Amino acid sequence: MSSERIIYLPLGGAGEIGMNAYVYGYGKPGRERLILVDLGVTFPDMDGTPGVDLIFPDMTWLIERRDRLEAIFVTHAHEDHVGAVHHFWERLGAPVHARAFTANIARRKMDEVGLPETTVQVASAWPETVTAGPFTVGFLPISHSIPESSALVIDVGGERLIHSGDFKLDETPIVGEPFDAALWAEVAKPGVKALICDSTNVFSLHAGRSEVTVGPEIEKLVAGASGLVCATTFASNVARVKTLAEAGKRAGRSIVLLGRAMRRMIEASIETGVLKDFPKVIPPEEASGMPRESLMLLVTGSQGERRAASAQLARGKYNGLELQEGDLFLFSSKTIPGNERGVIRIMNQMSEKGVDVVDDSTGHYHVSGHANRPDLERMQDIVQPQMVIPMHGEHRHLREHVKLTRARGRAAALAVNGTMLDLGGNRPEVAEFIETGRVYLDGQVQVGAMDGIVRDRIRMALNGHVIVTVILDEDDEPLGNPWCEVMGLPEIGKSQAPLVDVLEEDLSQYLGRAGAKTLTDDDKLDEDMRRIARNSTMGEIGKKPEVTVVISRLS
Amino acid sequence: MSSERIIYLPLGGAGEIGMNAYVYGYGKPGRERLILVDLGVTFPDMDGTPGVDLIFPDMTWLIERRDRLEAIFVTHAHEDHVGAVHHFWERLGAPVHARAFTANIARRKMDEVGLPETTVQVASAWPETVTAGPFTVGFLPISHSIPESSALVIDVGGERLIHSGDFKLDETPIVGEPFDAALWAEVAKPGVKALICDSTNVFSLHAGRSEVTVGPEIEKLVAGASGLVCATTFASNVARVKTLAEAGKRAGRSIVLLGRAMRRMIEASIETGVLKDFPKVIPPEEASGMPRESLMLLVTGSQGERRAASAQLARGKYNGLELQEGDLFLFSSKTIPGNERGVIRIMNQMSEKGVDVVDDSTGHYHVSGHANRPDLERMQDIVQPQMVIPMHGEHRHLREHVKLTRARGRAAALAVNGTMLDLGGNRPEVAEFIETGRVYLDGQVQVGAMDGIVRDRIRMALNGHVIVTVILDEDDEPLGNPWCEVMGLPEIGKSQAPLVDVLEEDLSQYLGRAGAKTLTDDDKLDEDMRRIARNSTMGEIGKKPEVTVVISRLS
Repeated sequence: MSSERIIYLPLGGAGEIGMNAYVYGYGKPGRERLILVDLGVTFPDMDGTPGVDLIFPDMTWLIERRDRLEAIFVTHAHEDHVGAVHHFWERLGAPVHARAFTANIARRKMDEVGLPETTVQVASAWPETVTAGPFTVGFLPISHSIPESSALVIDVGGERLIHSGDFKLDETPIVGEPFDAALWAEVAKPGVKALICDSTNVFSLHAGRSEVTVGPEIEKLVAGASGLVCATTFASNVARVKTLAEAGKRAGRSIVLLGRAMRRMIEASIETGVLKDFPKVIPPEEASGMPRESLMLLVTGSQGERRAASAQLARGKYNGLELQEGDLFLFSSKTIPGNERGVIRIMNQMSEKGVDVVDDSTGHYHVSGHANRPDLERMQDIVQPQMVIPMHGEHRHLREHVKLTRARGRAAALAVNGTMLDLGGNRPEVAEFIETGRVYLDGQVQVGAMDGIVRDRIRMALNGHVIVTVILDEDDEPLGNPWCEVMGLPEIGKSQAPLVDVLEEDLSQYLGRAGAKTLTDDDKLDEDMRRIARNSTMGEIGKKPEVTVVISRLS
Repeated sequence: MSSERIIYLPLGGAGEIGMNAYVYGYGKPGRERLILVDLGVTFPDMDGTPGVDLIFPDMTWLIERRDRLEAIFVTHAHEDHVGAVHHFWERLGAPVHARAFTANIARRKMDEVGLPETTVQVASAWPETVTAGPFTVGFLPISHSIPESSALVIDVGGERLIHSGDFKLDETPIVGEPFDAALWAEVAKPGVKALICDSTNVFSLHAGRSEVTVGPEIEKLVAGASGLVCATTFASNVARVKTLAEAGKRAGRSIVLLGRAMRRMIEASIETGVLKDFPKVIPPEEASGMPRESLMLLVTGSQGERRAASAQLARGKYNGLELQEGDLFLFSSKTIPGNERGVIRIMNQMSEKGVDVVDDSTGHYHVSGHANRPDLERMQDIVQPQMVIPMHGEHRHLREHVKLTRARGRAAALAVNGTMLDLGGNRPEVAEFIETGRVYLDGQVQVGAMDGIVRDRIRMALNGHVIVTVILDEDDEPLGNPWCEVMGLPEIGKSQAPLVDVLEEDLSQYLGRAGAKTLTDDDKLDEDMRRIARNSTMGEIGKKPEVTVVISRLS
């Protein structure tokens, strides 16, 4: 019988940036005790997932093994790490551990679905640890773009693993613990078997900049503004929100927070003690009567989200406040690939109002929360792991991170979602491939990504939808002519007649010719009429629509 | 009676980057003789225009005045300047003038829709001119990212206007005429009333770089490659294609062109004499038997277009050629905002094949074809126009360009699509506002952007589509139960019953309760059943679908 092994299995986050979910296990093959690190979401887009509300990793593998799951650990409170916890908690049924700020956010989510606070347990930072079956797990502070981000020190089977979480090496992060290289070296001293490491910025060649570097630039910008100043960043970037607020305060402006996430994040930061000395905030009602030059708005919507405060301000009023000619709008943020159109839309709407828009194209008003290539190298130098397993990246990031690691003489493995690695040997070995995928939250229902529902929506969006109705009487003879309705198709086609008329004529002719055998065969009728409707539309419009045939029999 | 005026009216391209169409006129108000400069397209996207094939400016205003249209001038052969000419030519009915390369491309388009070569007339460069009614128009060479791009020198009513077209100030452009500052100064010497000027790169603060600067970097990259090298750029960037091909040739590689646009552009360049000494090209069939390290593929698809050669190579074989571990793929291009997802998809697919992907993130492998802010300033210094009218830009670009111009003490106007300016005075004055818009090519049919067709598609994509069928007998009584079909919605909702069952049950109950008055009223039935279907789906799924109600009466 084979002996214990240490396994690593990404169910999400490896081969994409988003929906992080990493399983670690220890025990005899197939009987490992398990922990889950993070359980996040990915955001949908119109291109591939129209109408979908959120995207989750498919957790089937773990749900089927829930009796072996000891605990869930959440490294930090970004949506791609914590956003799915409350959607799966009941089916996983294990305690959630997180540090105070992260736990505060996680508990708010649990509360939204009626789950109690006790589902989430507050963990202290390293050297405190949490025991979960054969695992001893410590939250080792690391800087990132949200308070209390933590790496996990996972001791199991006599080995030490470090799961980096999302991180940068910031010794002056404004909010939260500075990166403490000495502490990390000390933790690594007994020997680290594997560093499972963030790969997001592996293509960024220069060492990352500290959060502290943006303050003076922002201050200069705000000091020079003559109208109202409005700034947006990720609400969870509490350090940035503080920097922005302080720049406003120094310029003699009163601070207004707009957008639910902005207020919630600041509230959670103050409740948990991670944010101190935040400038006084005034409510929007109070602000609306004040001179414009005495105000600084901090708003949600740095990614151009249509419902966020920034987009609403770009279109018109929000909470009684409105931007005008001579105001300044600052994107203290980076646009995530895919969000460009939404951000540019806001910039142009602001321009139409005469508002000056400033973004980070000069590199002055934003720094990334992820470790750049030289930082990743420095991290390896500090931790000296036997092997590195890149995670939190698209395929190209993981591959580059593997190349970088191997070039430095260290073992590494490219493990995308579903690749179970055995970390116990001298180098990572593939143990198994697990089927993984995505689950969509569609309205309030979870559907599989492969169910075809979203595929049908995309097809209707690209090609329109034709509905054909035909009634057959008791003798299986057509009663009247078939009837067509179209949705999302031009009314008039090439023949200059209404498309529905052309379709109904072509379908009538078909039914007129159809023999008794065909008229009693629903499948055949459906298939034929679908084909005719598609071909006729192709002839008239030049595209093949989706077709639904409804056959009603009076018999 | 009022006297002659000189008007400028953008119908497309001012307030957006794309679908350029600028009208100039001269004469008594309402009786001006007109010319059109450029007639281009914009490309659709899934967010706002799913299923649409191309987007055109709404040319209704000009079509209604076609008796006053003297001619159409095309500045260069980019799709956003020439791409709609053949779609509107018959309704505009004026001669098209363009320089040889542009004319070659325009004629190919005319040919596609069965129009003769004679629709497009080849113009020589300045100092030659074309007379069109009261207009004398000269094609003044200017550098851009396509051969033979030209500004237009428009002499009318005793004034000289310069329409810049798309341009950069490149004195070493590899292909096509270098920017000739002395010639421009000479043209401007008699005095220029207005410079109507490209605004694309007004936010780029450093002077633009010459096309010649990318050659050595590309050469170094290709020389260092050990496998097959594949590079993509806009096919119309003939200078870049030549630079890439020469880098391949110097590294001892045979050149293969993949993708229809790539072959067509090189063919047109050679036919018209703008491209000389292009390295020998071999056909894909010949290449497939050759060693990988002796090949350089130049392919279409720098923007991640799904059907282009790059995307097909990322997925698998194309023309018998396939990329492998150790090959190199170069994006010698910039990703246009909105295309990021498609480009990143290709990068990751390449990564999965083990192909190394290089893009312009270092700034080594691409230069822009548009004038940066200092170049725009230099252009104003050379031309010394009385006024500047920014065009070819989103609102934010136009606004910034106006600010820049006014800061230098020159008159300027922010004129978005539909703003008719009178250029005759000392400063531009708004003469009228014209209704403008967009027209979609949907399959082979043109539909108005406001017709609601695409809106319906977007709604189906976001919310799914429910089809309700009900049959009423001769006595206006429901015959059987209503029948539901759904497309693009989850099968099972909150009650764990099939969604269609819940819908049919709710609708049956409604019909059972409906009185004779309701049952004879199609509008009421339609409205009620639509509402019930929407509300029931909302209860089950959490979203309100599009609903089509089909009522069939046997009477």
